[in-house]
Amino acid sequence: MSAPLHEARPAGPGRALPDTQQGMRRRNLSRVLHTVSAEGPLSRAAVASRIGLTRAAVSTLVDELIRSGLLEELGPERPGRVGRPGSALAVSGRGPAGIGAEVGVDHLAVCAVDLRGRVRSRAVRQVANRDRPPGPVAGDLTELVHRVVAEAEAEGLWPAGLAVAVPGLVARDARTVVRAPNLGWQDTDLGALLPSRFPLTVANEANFGALAELWLGEGTLRDFLHVSAEIGIGAAVVVDGRLLHGNRGFAGELGHVPVQPEGPECACGGRGCLEQYAGEEAVLRAAGLEPGEDRVGMLAGRAEQGDADVRRALRDAGTALGIALTGAVNLLDPESVVLGGALSGLAPWLLPSLRSELARRTAGPACPVSVSALGPEGPLLGAAHSVVRGVLDDPAAVAGRT
Amino acid sequence: MSAPLHEARPAGPGRALPDTQQGMRRRNLSRVLHTVSAEGPLSRAAVASRIGLTRAAVSTLVDELIRSGLLEELGPERPGRVGRPGSALAVSGRGPAGIGAEVGVDHLAVCAVDLRGRVRSRAVRQVANRDRPPGPVAGDLTELVHRVVAEAEAEGLWPAGLAVAVPGLVARDARTVVRAPNLGWQDTDLGALLPSRFPLTVANEANFGALAELWLGEGTLRDFLHVSAEIGIGAAVVVDGRLLHGNRGFAGELGHVPVQPEGPECACGGRGCLEQYAGEEAVLRAAGLEPGEDRVGMLAGRAEQGDADVRRALRDAGTALGIALTGAVNLLDPESVVLGGALSGLAPWLLPSLRSELARRTAGPACPVSVSALGPEGPLLGAAHSVVRGVLDDPAAVAGRT
Repeated sequence: MSAPLHEARPAGPGRALPDTQQGMRRRNLSRVLHTVSAEGPLSRAAVASRIGLTRAAVSTLVDELIRSGLLEELGPERPGRVGRPGSALAVSGRGPAGIGAEVGVDHLAVCAVDLRGRVRSRAVRQVANRDRPPGPVAGDLTELVHRVVAEAEAEGLWPAGLAVAVPGLVARDARTVVRAPNLGWQDTDLGALLPSRFPLTVANEANFGALAELWLGEGTLRDFLHVSAEIGIGAAVVVDGRLLHGNRGFAGELGHVPVQPEGPECACGGRGCLEQYAGEEAVLRAAGLEPGEDRVGMLAGRAEQGDADVRRALRDAGTALGIALTGAVNLLDPESVVLGGALSGLAPWLLPSLRSELARRTAGPACPVSVSALGPEGPLLGAAHSVVRGVLDDPAAVAGRT
Repeated sequence: MSAPLHEARPAGPGRALPDTQQGMRRRNLSRVLHTVSAEGPLSRAAVASRIGLTRAAVSTLVDELIRSGLLEELGPERPGRVGRPGSALAVSGRGPAGIGAEVGVDHLAVCAVDLRGRVRSRAVRQVANRDRPPGPVAGDLTELVHRVVAEAEAEGLWPAGLAVAVPGLVARDARTVVRAPNLGWQDTDLGALLPSRFPLTVANEANFGALAELWLGEGTLRDFLHVSAEIGIGAAVVVDGRLLHGNRGFAGELGHVPVQPEGPECACGGRGCLEQYAGEEAVLRAAGLEPGEDRVGMLAGRAEQGDADVRRALRDAGTALGIALTGAVNLLDPESVVLGGALSGLAPWLLPSLRSELARRTAGPACPVSVSALGPEGPLLGAAHSVVRGVLDDPAAVAGRT
């Protein structure tokens, strides 16, 4: 994709590409496809009235989208409506698919999502990736990608791109993992290790989780802070429906916000960072437990059973999250904070202290904190959907590739 | 202005206005005007090559901008160039002007800036506005506005709009001051108290200061955190050349980021907020001084003379700023932090401890911190220029009003 996560920097007014007929046509193709995707099935007339173009103009655009395999006709609308029956349009259930992948500390996952947003194929493998070199991890991931792509192709889909979620910082080139401490990776060009057959986008798992929340979440949030965690604490900031990347692509490092300025040293070089209080390892240590596999599951299980040490450790983690989020909320003024990813499984024990800390530090009503309904699936779905959105945003770019 | 600070929320792809010929013409008028403004004087041919339109198309657009009084011809270019000499175009030094105004705790200021970015008229009045009701303050400001507008009109300019910087939180309606603790204002509809003759935009002073830095600053920063202070500590976040507003318009409240979670209580409801360590009053208290007029000037003067208490108080304020900025930098990943507004006058004594605190909390190279060359003038200039930018961004909107 030329625009990683669809947010290449817009050129300034004087430097933008000229506003040509060709550009207008591409944008209008996207409007038609987005409208049918969001509200279809729709007739050509309904599309025309929704986007404010003439029916003739829409028909031309629709014909092009049908030829490219992005839209399909469902046949005449049911009778009984006023006027000549139009044929209902829907986005294609064949055609392009987004391939999403996730590199977790304990697992690999891949899925294919069609233009209708349905998961059409899926593969997961439990594997201990901690401190495992990038080559073998990418090799295993490639195998899963090929399996999922083969299944999707058998159903008439073709991969429009591959998007990979990783638990680490990714450079703005959207292929280099600059730092993934829990994998032990540094300055790893993941792009060179993955199949070159598809356009590739690599991004932080919290970023894809936030995009999943934006596109698939229950609310209609457009300004929020999405907090997730696997071993570290990741976050992503969505502003006006767009992900905030930051200058180097590292925005959202909530885990290294100072919570106690003279607290314990952190690997980042700081002291008293949030991760020292609310990261998985800190919570396990505070609860007197050894790190093992499925740490979130173990913590949730023990908390459920009433283990006082685990509950106290999670309560304290919630307090630390509340302090760090007070700062973040003051800086960003979001509509909401959403706990997603692995954190969502611990929410029942984190939320009370987190919310009360936010409330006691806020004069007016405190910023609402909710739990993502997508849970740990968010990053994988966000990755696959980012490819699908790329097609909806510029259908002309894939039209030649069918 | 229909788009306060030029950043109305963009509609999503399916909901945007249709991409019409009319919209295309308006955007191209803006491209021509921006190009001449940034790089002029330029011939029609030079404009055409820079924006990638045909010379004929550019000539039509230029004619319209000349008729509207936004561009003017300087006469034929100097001979000796290859080809037929073209007439050089420049933005008009008459025509529309942006009126900027600032409500400070100790002063009021108004200025008029023409399309070329020059300040053409200016009026300042020292007045103690602390705890003064909005009516009389707006009355005094209106008097200054009328004086500045009359001077501008005498030079052939006409006011395209009025933008007012205030030291407080402003609602997204861009006219209601929700809270300005140092003025003692709450939920004040400033729009109702100011002349209705001009389109009005009210915004936080730190926001206008940040825009001034973006448009007029020495660097070419597009992602930065602008920190200013009068009595409180304000900040504004610029992402990809756009101001981050937040859900309620309150983004950038750096002053209430917790720095010592169990520190002194703050009026905001929190504890240990940055303002309790680095706000003007906290610094005066730490230095054992009484608040008076021109507090920044007094602090700077004493620090200059080597007053150990003042220097220590400023050093500690810098450390607190460093802690709060570590969190902000981790969240936002800006290119740079810029100290502006009143803070810029204290920078020599704040910067060393601020920078070393940021550096000791960062593993790699720390985020650069610089001082705005605009100093305390930033917010006023940013306000006036926001009106000018509004004209450059949509010249068709003012064309009928000459």
